[in-house]
Amino acid sequence: MLLRLRTVPAFLQKVPQALTIFCLILLGYGVKAEEIKSPNGQLTLEFSLQRGGVPTYHLTYKGRDVIKPSKLGFDLKNAPSLTSGFAVAESKQRTFDESWQPVWGEVKTIRNHYNELAVTLTQAATSRIIRVRFRVFDDGLGFRYEFPKQDKLTHFVVKEERTQFALAGDHKAFWLPGDYDTQEYNTTTSKLSQVRALMKAAVTPNASQTTFSPTGVQTPLMLKSQDGLYINLHEAALIDYSTMSLELDDKNFILETHLTPDAAGDKGFLQTPANSPWRTVVVSDRAGDILESHLILNLNEPTKYKDVSWIKPVKYVGVWWEMITGRSTWAYTDATNIKLDSTDYRTLKPNGRHAANTAHVKEYIDFAAKHGFDAVLVEGWNVGWEDWFGEHKDYVFDFVTPYPDFDVQELHRYAAGKNVKLIMHHETSGAVRNYERHLEAAYKFMADNGYNAVKSGYVGDILPLGQHHYSQWTNNHYLYALTEAAKYHIMVNAHEAVRPTGLARTYPNLIGNEAARGTEYEAFGGNNPDHTTILPFTRLMGGPMDYTPGIFQTQISALNPENKSFVHSTLARQLALYVTMYSPLQMAADLPENYNKHLDAFQFIKDVAVDWDDTKVLEAEPGDYVTIARKAKGKNSWFIGSSCDENGRTSTVNFSFLDPGKPYVATIYADARNAHYEKNPQAYTIRKVNVTSKSRLAQYCAPGGGYAISVVPATTRR
Amino acid sequence: MLLRLRTVPAFLQKVPQALTIFCLILLGYGVKAEEIKSPNGQLTLEFSLQRGGVPTYHLTYKGRDVIKPSKLGFDLKNAPSLTSGFAVAESKQRTFDESWQPVWGEVKTIRNHYNELAVTLTQAATSRIIRVRFRVFDDGLGFRYEFPKQDKLTHFVVKEERTQFALAGDHKAFWLPGDYDTQEYNTTTSKLSQVRALMKAAVTPNASQTTFSPTGVQTPLMLKSQDGLYINLHEAALIDYSTMSLELDDKNFILETHLTPDAAGDKGFLQTPANSPWRTVVVSDRAGDILESHLILNLNEPTKYKDVSWIKPVKYVGVWWEMITGRSTWAYTDATNIKLDSTDYRTLKPNGRHAANTAHVKEYIDFAAKHGFDAVLVEGWNVGWEDWFGEHKDYVFDFVTPYPDFDVQELHRYAAGKNVKLIMHHETSGAVRNYERHLEAAYKFMADNGYNAVKSGYVGDILPLGQHHYSQWTNNHYLYALTEAAKYHIMVNAHEAVRPTGLARTYPNLIGNEAARGTEYEAFGGNNPDHTTILPFTRLMGGPMDYTPGIFQTQISALNPENKSFVHSTLARQLALYVTMYSPLQMAADLPENYNKHLDAFQFIKDVAVDWDDTKVLEAEPGDYVTIARKAKGKNSWFIGSSCDENGRTSTVNFSFLDPGKPYVATIYADARNAHYEKNPQAYTIRKVNVTSKSRLAQYCAPGGGYAISVVPATTRR
Repeated sequence: MLLRLRTVPAFLQKVPQALTIFCLILLGYGVKAEEIKSPNGQLTLEFSLQRGGVPTYHLTYKGRDVIKPSKLGFDLKNAPSLTSGFAVAESKQRTFDESWQPVWGEVKTIRNHYNELAVTLTQAATSRIIRVRFRVFDDGLGFRYEFPKQDKLTHFVVKEERTQFALAGDHKAFWLPGDYDTQEYNTTTSKLSQVRALMKAAVTPNASQTTFSPTGVQTPLMLKSQDGLYINLHEAALIDYSTMSLELDDKNFILETHLTPDAAGDKGFLQTPANSPWRTVVVSDRAGDILESHLILNLNEPTKYKDVSWIKPVKYVGVWWEMITGRSTWAYTDATNIKLDSTDYRTLKPNGRHAANTAHVKEYIDFAAKHGFDAVLVEGWNVGWEDWFGEHKDYVFDFVTPYPDFDVQELHRYAAGKNVKLIMHHETSGAVRNYERHLEAAYKFMADNGYNAVKSGYVGDILPLGQHHYSQWTNNHYLYALTEAAKYHIMVNAHEAVRPTGLARTYPNLIGNEAARGTEYEAFGGNNPDHTTILPFTRLMGGPMDYTPGIFQTQISALNPENKSFVHSTLARQLALYVTMYSPLQMAADLPENYNKHLDAFQFIKDVAVDWDDTKVLEAEPGDYVTIARKAKGKNSWFIGSSCDENGRTSTVNFSFLDPGKPYVATIYADARNAHYEKNPQAYTIRKVNVTSKSRLAQYCAPGGGYAISVVPATTRR
Repeated sequence: MLLRLRTVPAFLQKVPQALTIFCLILLGYGVKAEEIKSPNGQLTLEFSLQRGGVPTYHLTYKGRDVIKPSKLGFDLKNAPSLTSGFAVAESKQRTFDESWQPVWGEVKTIRNHYNELAVTLTQAATSRIIRVRFRVFDDGLGFRYEFPKQDKLTHFVVKEERTQFALAGDHKAFWLPGDYDTQEYNTTTSKLSQVRALMKAAVTPNASQTTFSPTGVQTPLMLKSQDGLYINLHEAALIDYSTMSLELDDKNFILETHLTPDAAGDKGFLQTPANSPWRTVVVSDRAGDILESHLILNLNEPTKYKDVSWIKPVKYVGVWWEMITGRSTWAYTDATNIKLDSTDYRTLKPNGRHAANTAHVKEYIDFAAKHGFDAVLVEGWNVGWEDWFGEHKDYVFDFVTPYPDFDVQELHRYAAGKNVKLIMHHETSGAVRNYERHLEAAYKFMADNGYNAVKSGYVGDILPLGQHHYSQWTNNHYLYALTEAAKYHIMVNAHEAVRPTGLARTYPNLIGNEAARGTEYEAFGGNNPDHTTILPFTRLMGGPMDYTPGIFQTQISALNPENKSFVHSTLARQLALYVTMYSPLQMAADLPENYNKHLDAFQFIKDVAVDWDDTKVLEAEPGDYVTIARKAKGKNSWFIGSSCDENGRTSTVNFSFLDPGKPYVATIYADARNAHYEKNPQAYTIRKVNVTSKSRLAQYCAPGGGYAISVVPATTRR
């Protein structure tokens, strides 16, 4: 024992013990637990070393197990594991309580209030030190690993993170197949014990996909216990680390981290001092609390930018849906096998279906200006689309050369004259190096031509092959593109990139991400009718999604007779999504011609805010329904959205969030009684009613339907 | 048969047959050969389709087999092989004869004279077309594959190139182990049949190495047949393709291409139209002809640069050898585990051995100015060297931040005042993406601070792991760095990069490469005494090497008592290398203090040219000796160098290359009679003799020795 004690590093012996709880555990014997509670006392986190010096944690909510005692640790490459043989060298607790204001968000002010336990562990046999930092909030737990700077642990390679989440039972899970390259799956809802049997059917085709296990699932993973606990597992502040999936032990209902590897199978190159991302457990017995949680944002660092005045929420239309549906094309010609550096487009015959032409884009600009949109996205403006996909082509786009029929200067002039911005589009085709080579020139081109936002895309396999969309190497790229963009005051909406983990707090020019099955899939066979009742509990936990709602013409064949897909939603529900699917970047994705046929309904999209002072989840049950009310930034008006599953229901709105005693007018955009997402999607009603904080509204939602309500003070007139 | 004929594409049937030799072979039957000869008639190249439509070629020299009938073709990924089932659709011959002047080189004018046979092959079963283009020069053969633009072959992935070189016997070979990451091996000289037995000993340790086969060898591969044919195999114009090694069938003495894979095992992503690099066979019965060959340069494209006036040969000294020997350090401190973005070097204690400090660099500048050198290389000037190697660290250098003791502006001012340039140093540590991210800023920093040349380095494994130094992906990087540098009028000397293949013709700012075991290894245990008698026949076939000769203090312990290595060369031979190891970039690598002790010998280094109007190989036998005379660019003076192996010999110089009738003075820097590379390396003599074109000189070379001669017109006085 004396020998062991001698192995404690000298600096640890200097730690002021009066300020800390200092406990050195005898290796291989006994358990000494430490616990902290959430500020409201409902959550309890207990850390202990199990026999053999194995670090574990245990989380309860109102006395019920959320995470049963679960192991912590790492396997390293060419080095002993960091999973056992630990003793507690130091343990510190503190309380933190601060409020902060996001640059954009669901609420004006966010309270960051937690109790913290930081346990420093020494592995005597290797003289290595790690620290596990737990933060217990009223809405859940975050914890991360910290690797302090030390002599015996400098550079190291993660073979696998060994963090367990031992669940208390065979919970209902809302899951996507674990995949290194895509999140664009429909959610499967099942018991954990059914994951294995349902996996094959869950893995639908994608442009790039790499599943890894018959029981691997993604985060954010939404769970519901049989006794009504809602549990969400995800991660926060994913920086310089590979993305976490979860490997399910479906006998014992233990989930364990499975990191995304690189080409050599390595899962992380770290250098001390270093931290893992936070592993997050959001929990409540009320589903709405999950949606109202800001735990993931709170675990991210405050913004690194001194000036954020250039970052603004955006409502936009775009030259996009007409290509998605197959009506028009990104490509200028029908040529194939194009090489950028030897192709003179002026010599090629246009195909006549190229949407991003100057005249047509002006129509979108006119529409945007007329209806008060901030911006117009234009895809397919730049050369290369004839030969961009599926061949692992490296030099696929240069991001600065327009097609002959797209006049950059003229469109900039025209849009500026109407106070409309154009949104740039950078499809990388997964050729990450090629994009980085062109990044500075592309951003400068944007700045020179009046663009202040870019939608980027990573369709297809990441190049060089062997890297994945969620490898540390690729994750570093997304952040590089984001921070380089900030230098040019450019906002980024990255599609097919890594799922967000609250990084937009730190880098608020990340105004959008896809990272899930968006509206585009409604033209590729459809999303499940309950899709938008689940996404807020899963994908949106990490950050906003550019879901691109607002499709009024839900029959794709109306745009392209060959495409028999239809949008699995009523028109009214399409309006609701502007509220239920929070994003500071919202598209009205349908074509102007379709909006012109329903200008009464379109009014809601024109009116709805994209930035908020407050948010109330009125009703929520993952997979069944979501009803949310939000208060517009700097205004006294509210917007309510409700989305329900394929069964339809009658929703109840309690207007108690309104200022007491004040009269309001609510405009209700709702499914007609005979509406149905498949059979009668465009049947909607619009009515106005007077409401106060005492009002209650029972509102019908059709199967696959929903409703949207704008609530303005009665004195206000449009 | 009729059916097969119908599969010939229509456009091929239109080929004007009067101008071509058109032959359509019956698949699976018979052989129809076509042949062309070299301009002087000594080489014959025969192409034929073997049974089953297998394309083959056959090369003879003066009636002797150089390459016996050998197969051609490709295996593709997820597509049928391009190895058989071919018919000849078209065959064209032409003669080409043109002379051109290199920007810098061994001769003033290069004649590019060949007969060409281009055979277009159709694979009926797949409707795919390939073309093999053969060029037969008096000094050898070059051939490449061409993949014309076509419908049935657009994008494709090379699984392996299947080009064979069937040798006529168990030749003597000068070989390096085949490796995806390094060429820094001593050459093993053996019969081909002995390669397997000697491989293990041949694979000595390196900072990054990936061998692939017990009989894999590198190119340039030098061979000598028992009947005295000298054969060199290499490649030319390696662009957007992975580097070729050769896999030896040591029973039948057939070499076959083995390309460098990427992380996924793929060996090349091609899009039609595309060409392979040229595969080259230089052959003669006189060894000197191999060294005088310009075949590889001739197979490269003329320069792509409009303005080449900024590209100048460079003779330089540098802050380098003192670190290589261990006397001083690249790093400013003895700190470890440094992170660039969180390290303030001003707070760290200098180690007192950092060579790249302002005062010390000024000493080098003074020395360079005094002795007429163009430039001073400074390594270790930039932050990061404390933690740069062996950990696969990504952000290892930023290439623009100097150590606190290195004053960029002051040194620029000081050097400019003495008409000396500083040479920039960019060690990438293999972190290719990190380098590309910083490239533009680093080049701009150079331009802003008066640098016009950079030595770049790729020590360690290429990142991301799985890519290799010679993968297509990485080869593309080297060319990218080179062409980006050209935009800033920067010359590049890339170390640990891919071996050159004559690309400096096209991109003449590639003034140097390492890509072999250079002088640095003399401080790491030593190079074989015959090393410099082999390199001209191997590594230098593709382009110049920054061998960094000129070490006068051959006992490394004189600089660092702990280092017992010694240079395996006499001092006189160190002088010879400036002539025998052609490069437009030549370093005097030793320390000024060592040159100051031998200023009489140093005079040769000061005098020797680095650009040439003419070159004559006077004597040569790979592994034994090389004696070369070169005429200085624009002058009537000549310089002669001779290097011999560990046995020593008496060399004969025939001065017939001098202008007839003119008197010259030759200054001969030679080994003393008792000199020996190990026992007495610094024993040299210097003498002057009068010579004319009729003079003959018998000159002794000590074991591991050599000599250098400057020959100037007698009327010229220094």
